[in-house]
Amino acid sequence: MKIYHGNIVYSKSATELMSYENGYLLVENGKVLSVEKELKEEYKNSEIIDFKNSLIIPAFSDLHVHAPQYPNRGIQMDLLLNDWLNKYTFPLESKYKDESFARKVYSKFAADLIKYGTMHAVILGTIHNNATDILMEELERRGISSFVGKVNMDKNSPSYLIETTDESIKNTELFIKKHQNNKYAKPILTPRFAPTCSFDLLKKLGELSDKYNIGVQTHIVESLWEAEEAKKCFEGCLCDMEIYEKAGLLKHKPFIAAHYIFPSELDLKLLKECGGFAVQCPDSTSNVIAGIMRTGYLLDNGINLGIGSDIAAGEYLGIYRGVSSAVRLSKIKSFYEKENRSIDFSEAFYMATKMSGSIFGKVGSFEKGYDFDALVISDIEDDYEKLTPIEMAERFCYLGETTNIYHRFLRGEEI
Amino acid sequence: MKIYHGNIVYSKSATELMSYENGYLLVENGKVLSVEKELKEEYKNSEIIDFKNSLIIPAFSDLHVHAPQYPNRGIQMDLLLNDWLNKYTFPLESKYKDESFARKVYSKFAADLIKYGTMHAVILGTIHNNATDILMEELERRGISSFVGKVNMDKNSPSYLIETTDESIKNTELFIKKHQNNKYAKPILTPRFAPTCSFDLLKKLGELSDKYNIGVQTHIVESLWEAEEAKKCFEGCLCDMEIYEKAGLLKHKPFIAAHYIFPSELDLKLLKECGGFAVQCPDSTSNVIAGIMRTGYLLDNGINLGIGSDIAAGEYLGIYRGVSSAVRLSKIKSFYEKENRSIDFSEAFYMATKMSGSIFGKVGSFEKGYDFDALVISDIEDDYEKLTPIEMAERFCYLGETTNIYHRFLRGEEI
Repeated sequence: MKIYHGNIVYSKSATELMSYENGYLLVENGKVLSVEKELKEEYKNSEIIDFKNSLIIPAFSDLHVHAPQYPNRGIQMDLLLNDWLNKYTFPLESKYKDESFARKVYSKFAADLIKYGTMHAVILGTIHNNATDILMEELERRGISSFVGKVNMDKNSPSYLIETTDESIKNTELFIKKHQNNKYAKPILTPRFAPTCSFDLLKKLGELSDKYNIGVQTHIVESLWEAEEAKKCFEGCLCDMEIYEKAGLLKHKPFIAAHYIFPSELDLKLLKECGGFAVQCPDSTSNVIAGIMRTGYLLDNGINLGIGSDIAAGEYLGIYRGVSSAVRLSKIKSFYEKENRSIDFSEAFYMATKMSGSIFGKVGSFEKGYDFDALVISDIEDDYEKLTPIEMAERFCYLGETTNIYHRFLRGEEI
Repeated sequence: MKIYHGNIVYSKSATELMSYENGYLLVENGKVLSVEKELKEEYKNSEIIDFKNSLIIPAFSDLHVHAPQYPNRGIQMDLLLNDWLNKYTFPLESKYKDESFARKVYSKFAADLIKYGTMHAVILGTIHNNATDILMEELERRGISSFVGKVNMDKNSPSYLIETTDESIKNTELFIKKHQNNKYAKPILTPRFAPTCSFDLLKKLGELSDKYNIGVQTHIVESLWEAEEAKKCFEGCLCDMEIYEKAGLLKHKPFIAAHYIFPSELDLKLLKECGGFAVQCPDSTSNVIAGIMRTGYLLDNGINLGIGSDIAAGEYLGIYRGVSSAVRLSKIKSFYEKENRSIDFSEAFYMATKMSGSIFGKVGSFEKGYDFDALVISDIEDDYEKLTPIEMAERFCYLGETTNIYHRFLRGEEI
């Protein structure tokens, strides 16, 4: 058993942000045994790893990130979604037919996930099997809990980044078979979004979903353009989610709906029924002016929410910054649309840790039985002040940098 | 003379972002002599300081920052403006009657300005002379070009943070006299905002403005509440700016109008006529849901603009992040209000460097005769990629951290 001492913060629920000033965190076999205000008599002689006045929080989960777009983060940000895709994003993704390029980027990407405090992620690759296999390897050998997809796109795509329906299905099945027994990096179906997928492709992915009991990630009502385009492409479907339902893609968990900005009543009903997750990517949707998610409304209506960095429409890989951006963006939303309440820090922190962590098992909290996946944060106070543990967590999420993360634990092991 | 080699980026105008890949920057007596693509024959034997593939950009200017609020940055961010002021901000500001507290905070604040790449700033203190004198000392001894104000507030303020009109004027004059011959940290009149100042106070400040030829910083139309409140407080004034005009406060430069979110036509006319600056504080106004500045519209209408960190309603001291936030926020504004165009990276960078720098003299650019106030940025590329100098600058502004700033120059001297 290991005992860690420090200031401890974790979420129990959206409204219960637990805080222990100078508390003790007991870990056995990589899992949290308990968090205590005072150390019990029986442990008084145990070795204590003392993080003193540092903050110990759960590692974050990133529910939407395009690994191949990592080289484009924080550049060419002036364009809007459609131009940005065609001018920068698709050409970059086409480079992943080159395995050595893929290795360089994905090795850096996986290392940086850890550097930025993310230990669980739902990740899109490209259409290329070889490159996405490399991405899997890089995640697997670092032990990053993840769902990763080879992307499917068989229409409305540039000639240099498109598959036939048959190729797409064949290669997806190969990808699943190759990785279905991975320990950490698991395959997930990844139709890019409705406008780039034929209904035939989606139905066949639905069959793979049944055959291998495997979930789906995609972009859902991510912009007004996309929501309209999706309906146009699939006659008889009233909304984006209904397309996936009719293709049989809502039957297996997880279902990850990135952005989810303009859901109709039916979109809401279908996502709730399948227990899917809507993913708020705050800076990303602002950068490409896609609109703002109704986070407060969705939380109040029992929709599961998480936060995504959405590299490279979003620029920053650390989900802690996504926490503060989600709060800020919900305030802007409520300013323009009074019916949408803003969310608070406790809710956003919960979204980025325990709520989204539930996709990967018992991660994202320090309740009993949870994996000890944790970050130790230091140098967040000035020497003339004393912050509460929750203030430390809040300041880290608002203005923290990677250099504030002094220690990282994954399943109880320091990495 | 000193010659620096690297990737050089600076603004000539809002639309002209100059870029030299592997260029040479010649500095004499602390001022830029020229920037060259190739080194001229006559300099071939000079010593060259080689920053290799690093990026060299002008240091930033912060046009609106509350130094005393530095201990509250990034905490208690869930509240909105009015509650936040009364619950956290005013109580904190009242602590500056304690000089030893002031010394601790202001010493850290001034050091952090440099750490975050800001070498010119327009700064608010508190109502306390002694504390604000200490702030002046800390800025002056570091050579930070600044306009700094002892705050005036004689009504609508908590009993523990208010002055009589006479005290306020007497102490302001003492403050001006003490600091008018400072080399770097200059005094500026600082009526907090219209709702906390009597017209008598403003008029007497107007007389000091004439007597000492001294400018003004304040908050102008920073929220719908403030804009209405200001008009209510000053009968016969049609808008916020007219109050200052009638008090004789628009006659001496600079006039700094922080936030400037809801200007009327008359507000616009008066700010333009006096050559004042409107200051965009992007994260701050989102955090307290005050609304979003019409940056594109203001630029198109010839209003001078700058960027402010607005600590502690804003959380991050680095103005580089303000550059990307200003772009992002302008996109959100244009999404909700189609008549307001978004701004691009070149415009935001210009606002944060050359345009706002003009308040302090020839700073914020690398044109001939400008002070060599510069940041050298490294580790912004991954090893598998080659960015253009402008892409490096853009990525730094989107996801850079203080650790990316490897060297800092102030008037030609490395600090």
